[in-house]
Amino acid sequence: MEDLQKRADTLIEALPYIQQWAGKSIVVKYGGAAMTDPEMQRSVAQDVVLLRYVGIEVVVVHGGGNRITEMMDRLDIESKFVGGLRVTDAETMQIAQMVLVGEVNPQLVSLINAAGGRTVGLSGKDANTILCCKKESTQGDLGFVGEIVEIDTEVLHALTEAGYIPVLSSIGTDTDGQSYNINADTVAGELAAALPACKLVTLSDVPGLLADPADPDTLISELTASEAEARLAESNVNEGMIPKLESCIRAVRSGVDYAHLIDGRIPHALLMELFTDAGIGTMINSG
Amino acid sequence: MEDLQKRADTLIEALPYIQQWAGKSIVVKYGGAAMTDPEMQRSVAQDVVLLRYVGIEVVVVHGGGNRITEMMDRLDIESKFVGGLRVTDAETMQIAQMVLVGEVNPQLVSLINAAGGRTVGLSGKDANTILCCKKESTQGDLGFVGEIVEIDTEVLHALTEAGYIPVLSSIGTDTDGQSYNINADTVAGELAAALPACKLVTLSDVPGLLADPADPDTLISELTASEAEARLAESNVNEGMIPKLESCIRAVRSGVDYAHLIDGRIPHALLMELFTDAGIGTMINSG
Amino acid sequence: MEDLQKRADTLIEALPYIQQWAGKSIVVKYGGAAMTDPEMQRSVAQDVVLLRYVGIEVVVVHGGGNRITEMMDRLDIESKFVGGLRVTDAETMQIAQMVLVGEVNPQLVSLINAAGGRTVGLSGKDANTILCCKKESTQGDLGFVGEIVEIDTEVLHALTEAGYIPVLSSIGTDTDGQSYNINADTVAGELAAALPACKLVTLSDVPGLLADPADPDTLISELTASEAEARLAESNVNEGMIPKLESCIRAVRSGVDYAHLIDGRIPHALLMELFTDAGIGTMINSG
Amino acid sequence: MEDLQKRADTLIEALPYIQQWAGKSIVVKYGGAAMTDPEMQRSVAQDVVLLRYVGIEVVVVHGGGNRITEMMDRLDIESKFVGGLRVTDAETMQIAQMVLVGEVNPQLVSLINAAGGRTVGLSGKDANTILCCKKESTQGDLGFVGEIVEIDTEVLHALTEAGYIPVLSSIGTDTDGQSYNINADTVAGELAAALPACKLVTLSDVPGLLADPADPDTLISELTASEAEARLAESNVNEGMIPKLESCIRAVRSGVDYAHLIDGRIPHALLMELFTDAGIGTMINSG
Amino acid sequence: MEDLQKRADTLIEALPYIQQWAGKSIVVKYGGAAMTDPEMQRSVAQDVVLLRYVGIEVVVVHGGGNRITEMMDRLDIESKFVGGLRVTDAETMQIAQMVLVGEVNPQLVSLINAAGGRTVGLSGKDANTILCCKKESTQGDLGFVGEIVEIDTEVLHALTEAGYIPVLSSIGTDTDGQSYNINADTVAGELAAALPACKLVTLSDVPGLLADPADPDTLISELTASEAEARLAESNVNEGMIPKLESCIRAVRSGVDYAHLIDGRIPHALLMELFTDAGIGTMINSG
Amino acid sequence: MEDLQKRADTLIEALPYIQQWAGKSIVVKYGGAAMTDPEMQRSVAQDVVLLRYVGIEVVVVHGGGNRITEMMDRLDIESKFVGGLRVTDAETMQIAQMVLVGEVNPQLVSLINAAGGRTVGLSGKDANTILCCKKESTQGDLGFVGEIVEIDTEVLHALTEAGYIPVLSSIGTDTDGQSYNINADTVAGELAAALPACKLVTLSDVPGLLADPADPDTLISELTASEAEARLAESNVNEGMIPKLESCIRAVRSGVDYAHLIDGRIPHALLMELFTDAGIGTMINSG
Repeated sequence: MEDLQKRADTLIEALPYIQQWAGKSIVVKYGGAAMTDPEMQRSVAQDVVLLRYVGIEVVVVHGGGNRITEMMDRLDIESKFVGGLRVTDAETMQIAQMVLVGEVNPQLVSLINAAGGRTVGLSGKDANTILCCKKESTQGDLGFVGEIVEIDTEVLHALTEAGYIPVLSSIGTDTDGQSYNINADTVAGELAAALPACKLVTLSDVPGLLADPADPDTLISELTASEAEARLAESNVNEGMIPKLESCIRAVRSGVDYAHLIDGRIPHALLMELFTDAGIGTMINSG
Repeated sequence: MEDLQKRADTLIEALPYIQQWAGKSIVVKYGGAAMTDPEMQRSVAQDVVLLRYVGIEVVVVHGGGNRITEMMDRLDIESKFVGGLRVTDAETMQIAQMVLVGEVNPQLVSLINAAGGRTVGLSGKDANTILCCKKESTQGDLGFVGEIVEIDTEVLHALTEAGYIPVLSSIGTDTDGQSYNINADTVAGELAAALPACKLVTLSDVPGLLADPADPDTLISELTASEAEARLAESNVNEGMIPKLESCIRAVRSGVDYAHLIDGRIPHALLMELFTDAGIGTMINSG
Repeated sequence: MEDLQKRADTLIEALPYIQQWAGKSIVVKYGGAAMTDPEMQRSVAQDVVLLRYVGIEVVVVHGGGNRITEMMDRLDIESKFVGGLRVTDAETMQIAQMVLVGEVNPQLVSLINAAGGRTVGLSGKDANTILCCKKESTQGDLGFVGEIVEIDTEVLHALTEAGYIPVLSSIGTDTDGQSYNINADTVAGELAAALPACKLVTLSDVPGLLADPADPDTLISELTASEAEARLAESNVNEGMIPKLESCIRAVRSGVDYAHLIDGRIPHALLMELFTDAGIGTMINSG
Repeated sequence: MEDLQKRADTLIEALPYIQQWAGKSIVVKYGGAAMTDPEMQRSVAQDVVLLRYVGIEVVVVHGGGNRITEMMDRLDIESKFVGGLRVTDAETMQIAQMVLVGEVNPQLVSLINAAGGRTVGLSGKDANTILCCKKESTQGDLGFVGEIVEIDTEVLHALTEAGYIPVLSSIGTDTDGQSYNINADTVAGELAAALPACKLVTLSDVPGLLADPADPDTLISELTASEAEARLAESNVNEGMIPKLESCIRAVRSGVDYAHLIDGRIPHALLMELFTDAGIGTMINSG
Repeated sequence: MEDLQKRADTLIEALPYIQQWAGKSIVVKYGGAAMTDPEMQRSVAQDVVLLRYVGIEVVVVHGGGNRITEMMDRLDIESKFVGGLRVTDAETMQIAQMVLVGEVNPQLVSLINAAGGRTVGLSGKDANTILCCKKESTQGDLGFVGEIVEIDTEVLHALTEAGYIPVLSSIGTDTDGQSYNINADTVAGELAAALPACKLVTLSDVPGLLADPADPDTLISELTASEAEARLAESNVNEGMIPKLESCIRAVRSGVDYAHLIDGRIPHALLMELFTDAGIGTMINSG
Repeated sequence: MEDLQKRADTLIEALPYIQQWAGKSIVVKYGGAAMTDPEMQRSVAQDVVLLRYVGIEVVVVHGGGNRITEMMDRLDIESKFVGGLRVTDAETMQIAQMVLVGEVNPQLVSLINAAGGRTVGLSGKDANTILCCKKESTQGDLGFVGEIVEIDTEVLHALTEAGYIPVLSSIGTDTDGQSYNINADTVAGELAAALPACKLVTLSDVPGLLADPADPDTLISELTASEAEARLAESNVNEGMIPKLESCIRAVRSGVDYAHLIDGRIPHALLMELFTDAGIGTMINSG
């Protein structure tokens, strides 16, 4: 009975947070352990469904670089990177799209459906949701790496209003229908700005932004977009963290209230961030 | 952190229950300690608001016999009862209505508003919601004690669809506009049948239905409507429990899925009943 | 037949007025004889229902000082007034709320229902409709006398759009749920401004504004808000008339087209004012 | 003042009738003096607009035999009748349509617009509202005299729901687009059945159905459809009254509550019938 | 099979045009051979229905001077013209309205219905759609010739949104309900501006605007509104073409994208203009 | 000009077909040359978009066995078939899903978008649209080959009502989220029955059903479902044609009006079938 009591208390503690976010949009960038560990997959799926049930319009964005590399290896094709971006020739683009749209996305759809959601997988090609052009680079031709021109949220809104949870692969299209590979963190940030969402939550395999990337005890709990930009300039930020931080800054600069970097290795990190006072990870505000 | 983890687990444990009840109506009969103890008042108010936020359409029904008696005493008028029902002459009716509609109802509205709800108090006179006639009794003239003829749920549905939590006083009206005092348990049961609700939850100051009313350890966790009727016939049921049990039977006989008798002295008993596996109190099913 | 002819002519005379007001809101401040005389009660109720049927969205506001005083007397509590306002300690507040919300309001609901309306009684506590704070006075502590901070018309609009006639008691709430007693004329004026209404009609027991309060033959048929302010400054205005005149001025200053002071002792004064050329009482325009 | 009082009383007397008919459809068959006398035209137009304002969905049906005959005369074409029906060759059909659709209908539209209505004139050709076939007669070829096959009320409902008053000429069409002349009383009866309307009111130049057609003092106030049929069989019914009576019988036999034959020479006869206790003319009920 | 292939190719050629115009309004000014030749009537009706089916909201406007003159002759009344406008005394107005509203309009309604449309005929008197005043002329009193004051498109929008094709006669009304005769080209231009339409297409019996009115080989395919004005000033424009050109200029000056003058003697000229690359006739752009 | 005339005539010839199918659903089973030949791909995409623009709600279903085999080969995995069905172990399922959902579907989405459609790709896993179980076979374990249990059309209807063209991959899910490979012809037939569609059109590389599969001149233009069953029983039907014929029979037996087998190697075969009198291929009716 005492245990029941505590459970009820916990539900009640969530009430003010539910009241705060109900009816608003949240973009969840799914990645890292949350994508590979079956336990963590289930955990995120449950969190997403719970958010949806308490009236929050969640849109999930995912990439899947590791899976692409695995498939490339299986097909004996070498993966090349320039400045952290995968050089994407036509064959690589075909494989990337197959893996993201045909493997990662349906798997995530099934996970969220299994947790009780009504989920619809999309790529940025659907309804021309992510219109992009070729990304120019000073470091050489990146091939079909896309730069976002515009995000058309119409089909996403149609689906969320009908109660669905859209899951979006980070594949874009140009006006000729050519597919492009886009960094999923970038897609999440731009999407949060376009919806607009009130929150962008990025799941990764680190505790958040660390003052000293080598020392997990130096977690920065909250900082402003300007402070985050200063940290980026200092360039002691971990390479994988750079696009995440940039997309967070982009989002809060464009009207998103808060961007969060949280540790996807912790079960229910998403709920913990949203529905408890303490919160976890790093929060970037518009400062 | 560990604590946060447990909290998130608790929220997730609630998910299947939320999925089960979202979009459905629940009638909460408010009474006993939940009505007198400030702590319990807040607790019920929070529970009600949480239910509403996760998509459950809650309607609260209340009476308030103790408060009526207090006011009668203050005005030096004697309270008379026949067969557990207050003999209600014109003056008593005036006082009962003042107390229920003008004191208990607004207080409950304020409590639920304070917990974050959007609450509207009503009596059965509003929009002629509770149409009743004079209750005839073999034990003498009961005065303005009403027997429900019909419940018109139109204004209740209009309010719940607009996101409000209606709070209904157990006062009815006849076609001439004369007010009647009605047993609040009876109102709750008829209302649950009329909406229709999927659940009727009655809060009182006992743990539920006891096999032996004198022994709190004899709680019956679940029984069918027929079994409940048999118990009523045996007449070792506590007098105050009779109308509660009758209204539960009436409700499940009329299409309500489950009727619950729970202990309103336990904080968040309402949530505990709805959102955890164990449940508390007594559940009556249609058997 | 000749009589029938005249009746039809009368209905036709009303046509241009119906066309003028259909689809607009009118606030009726109910009080005086219209509240105490059974004949006048019925008369006002019929008028209100007729207005509603011809497409006018009527909201009725009422106070009930006399009834509060009667109840105070019955409970042997002395009524104290400062500057025309009832000094309202906690006990007085409880009684005022019981009387207004639990007695006067339901009675009015029944009257209008009996005349064929679909009526819902509300206090300013419902859906936090009348948010107020404590009114400060240079003449001493008034207790729980409220000053209106904001009127939230959402639930009123939801009800009028669904065809209901809301009847609002002049009780407000602060953000903590504490009840406050507010002058009903003030509530009517602020509500007319907030809806916004096209007309505020105040029923009282005088023919209107009199140039010489002592001489009923000195009725002023129409004046501007500025002229009305000048009269207030002259202070030969009857004390009871002061808040009525102030609320009329407040309303027309805030976008209400016309404010009317009419004699509630005349049967169907409300219809006479709205649906005939001559009109009765005093009309204040925005000048 | 006393006069004002009577006016208000009259409005209040109309209230129960307004409550009874609001939201329902009424078909008004316009004809006789109401069509020729400017005073009566205005009177009917005002009545129709008032009905619309109090929430009654009015559809007006008109013919115009006299005007057709006038135009025929002006064009030196002889009017021929068989069994009360105009023998309608192609030229006559052209003239009938021009007069009804191009002269009578727009005039009526202007009259009702001038009284404050929002009026749209239609013929049975519009949206194929009145589908008919050639009427066969044992008395010879009637030419383009139509027999109604079906009335499609879709465009009428679309217009009444948008607040318009449709005015329908008694011209029908077959599936090839050929126009047909139809008795306007017949159209009114079939339309009342098809909408369905709760009332059919036929305006003509007699006080109603007379027991002795030669004696205006023998007005029958009310009779059943069966009694009306018996009277038709007795054949002492005035020839012009036959189709009116038949359409009334047809209407009440098909679900219309009441059919009225009233004297269009009396100003505001329409209002008098609907909004006063006494009523005028003859009412046929479904018996 | 080869023929089928060509047909399919043709349908596909129409696709980009359908995409361009779907969901937009087009005003078709019907006149000339399209009004007199049965083959051309059917052709235009089919074109209009096809436009409606592919999602274009078509409104048809028509006049009918020839038919009016015919009827005037039949009634032995002389037709008088001043500056190309028919001098319209009361009798002429009556005849013009009968012919346009009672003959030409219903015939066009039947034609479009026969081609599969759902058509509703209106005059500018219906719902006071075309409000006008008397047109003053320096060349003498024109009688009831109207000058457009305002076009109220509400009933037209209500009908097009419900899937109907409105057909509008060029008859207007003043605020007293007096009918006026208006040039149909002028009505079409003002209506296109008021809706607003994206295109105004005027059907007449010439190939379009000719540089040399005497030489059909001098067709001007496209010109700007300014160039069209210059041509008007040069006054070698054919008299009948003047109001057409003026209404085209008026339309494109008021936000209509393009105005077309096309040859209504060519079967399906309307489709050819809209759904093929080549186009026919003269197109006026806003330059 | 003459050519333009013919084009217009062709458009008009399509009108009665457009009227017949507008507002109804059609399922197009895409496959064969239409899937491999770039010219044919564009052709089908244009046809689909044209259908959508004239108001037909098209849903496209595709499989892609050849592409799966290609990918299997590239990964050095052998393709095994039993009774025409691909034996689908876990690895094969992963590859099939990647190819269908991640390659074929997005390519088709891009094609239709490029032709002007608003297209959304889905698999049967999205919103649990295709619920299936393991297909049992007497010829051995088929692995993850699915048998359809139920098709939930909710998300398809939501998308078509919002103007989108859904493109559905023939991948299903069981209640645990396990993917299954399903014959695309079977999916198309079941989907047509579930929507319900008025037509099922199957594109393949043969002219239709041939009386003698070896002789293309023996095309059967129309047959009943019973006749088609008889032909299946005779078993001289080409193996690839069997599931197509079965799905056609299933569809017309379940309320679909017509099922068509047409030659996807002919440009615009889809339009030719729908919008010309002659039609092509084989049509199966419910007989």
